[in-house]
Amino acid sequence: MYKNFDELFNNKEFFKKTKSMLLIGACDKTSLEAVADATSRGIIEPILVGKKEKIEELLKDNDISIDTYEIIDAKTSNEMCEKSINYIIENNCDFLMKGTVNTSEIIKSILVRKKELLTNKLISHISLLEIPYLNKIISLSDTSINIKPNLEEKAEIIKNSRDFLIKIGYIKPKVAILSSIETVNEKMQDTVDAHELKLLNQKNVLDNCIIEGPISFDLAIDEKAAKNKKYKGRIKGDADLLIAPDIVSGNLLGKCFNYVPNSKFAGVILGVKFPIVLTSRASSKENKYYSILVGGMSTKEE
Amino acid sequence: MYKNFDELFNNKEFFKKTKSMLLIGACDKTSLEAVADATSRGIIEPILVGKKEKIEELLKDNDISIDTYEIIDAKTSNEMCEKSINYIIENNCDFLMKGTVNTSEIIKSILVRKKELLTNKLISHISLLEIPYLNKIISLSDTSINIKPNLEEKAEIIKNSRDFLIKIGYIKPKVAILSSIETVNEKMQDTVDAHELKLLNQKNVLDNCIIEGPISFDLAIDEKAAKNKKYKGRIKGDADLLIAPDIVSGNLLGKCFNYVPNSKFAGVILGVKFPIVLTSRASSKENKYYSILVGGMSTKEE
Repeated sequence: MYKNFDELFNNKEFFKKTKSMLLIGACDKTSLEAVADATSRGIIEPILVGKKEKIEELLKDNDISIDTYEIIDAKTSNEMCEKSINYIIENNCDFLMKGTVNTSEIIKSILVRKKELLTNKLISHISLLEIPYLNKIISLSDTSINIKPNLEEKAEIIKNSRDFLIKIGYIKPKVAILSSIETVNEKMQDTVDAHELKLLNQKNVLDNCIIEGPISFDLAIDEKAAKNKKYKGRIKGDADLLIAPDIVSGNLLGKCFNYVPNSKFAGVILGVKFPIVLTSRASSKENKYYSILVGGMSTKEE
Repeated sequence: MYKNFDELFNNKEFFKKTKSMLLIGACDKTSLEAVADATSRGIIEPILVGKKEKIEELLKDNDISIDTYEIIDAKTSNEMCEKSINYIIENNCDFLMKGTVNTSEIIKSILVRKKELLTNKLISHISLLEIPYLNKIISLSDTSINIKPNLEEKAEIIKNSRDFLIKIGYIKPKVAILSSIETVNEKMQDTVDAHELKLLNQKNVLDNCIIEGPISFDLAIDEKAAKNKKYKGRIKGDADLLIAPDIVSGNLLGKCFNYVPNSKFAGVILGVKFPIVLTSRASSKENKYYSILVGGMSTKEE
């Protein structure tokens, strides 16, 4: 659908209104630089949570100017998480960005206030990737949250990702349930689940998308490979969304993608009342900036 | 250790003697081209198994000249496997290459004659990869044979791969047990196994290598990432061998590696009395040729 990130972010509809974004664990240079960029372009109004003195020092030392920022002082990562969650609930923030704290700490703090923060949806992560050898943006779920999703949870992950893709402009996204083969093997639970998900799609239980699986990586992303292997599935190298069998396979695949020279990445957690921009601490300033943009695109409708 | 495939294959020690190689399912253009190359360089003496007429036609039509070849006629893939296995046992071939038949069919035929063909080792696959953004060859196991290896089987996979790497010149190869994190989480069996494997290494039960795990992809292959994250493991972005948690994660990772522009690949099955060169049907002529060279390097000692 979208050829690259430029085309995706060119969609001005999503950035008409400046959104409030809270950065949790703000003592991180590249995160602050990305936040400053997004702030200066009017995309976000940031709230920074962390050791106040250190944040101010970091901003000064690196000539990062965030004119309209608010800093909430917090010493430990536990305190940062608690204060952030409280602030979000009281002030109805648009979205959250993970800085120096661990994902698991944020999730724990959310679960303490789950009545206010959770919906009836599963929490799941989506990565958007611009890979130079592909001719379009490809998405991948779930590389970060659900350890070993069962069939029901995989269906929920697909729904979260599908709804997000439709929100940003896709019509019937093509969803590839990744495996190592194209046939169902009872000894490989991922192939059994993939087949079940395809059936749920054919029965319109899981609708508004095209689901194919089990399908191997090459047939999902490479039209030539699908043609050479005379693959008869409804996805022939043109998948929009890849669903990983579990967290470890998704994580390895996502990271291997990230190392492709000149690739770009953006990631966000879906299924909570406010989306959480989630990047690795080692991510570049650019990828953090892209993730903020994607976070802004994934907030609730006005 | 080896910077790239050129350096690896420059090791003339391994190619002093021409070896006999049987291609099972020979009606495949790129396989025949790779075989012809290796034959003309005196690396192998090939035996081709498949539909004789078709093979001869394919050789003629594509101007592939294999002077010293023998063709064994077989119609079905089942017949090809059976005749190949019989031939290998009777003639004591050096190694085997998979052509158009399925891996599972070959394995089935081997199991029928397991007394003659199996050792007390587990059968496992190793991929050797030259990835332009890495500064050395990296290996990956097991992407093709063992569906969900348990702790014991993972130890056997490591032994097969370690022994092969030592055979081709490595001293104490660095083995990274891949995961999505660096800490042990009881809910993630792969992290528990990784930790156990590391302990077996520290107790010298699994020796002649350095095992680290659980370790994420970036810390295993990227020295900068390991440094930035202040990672304290014994492998800091300099892994020689990556061990995948299971077949689906290994397969996804291996294929994602293969799509890195200008990457090179070679793969072989270890743990049988004769190694089996195993490439995907979609592999390029070059990768099939590299796999033949690696197959030749992995045969038993004279």
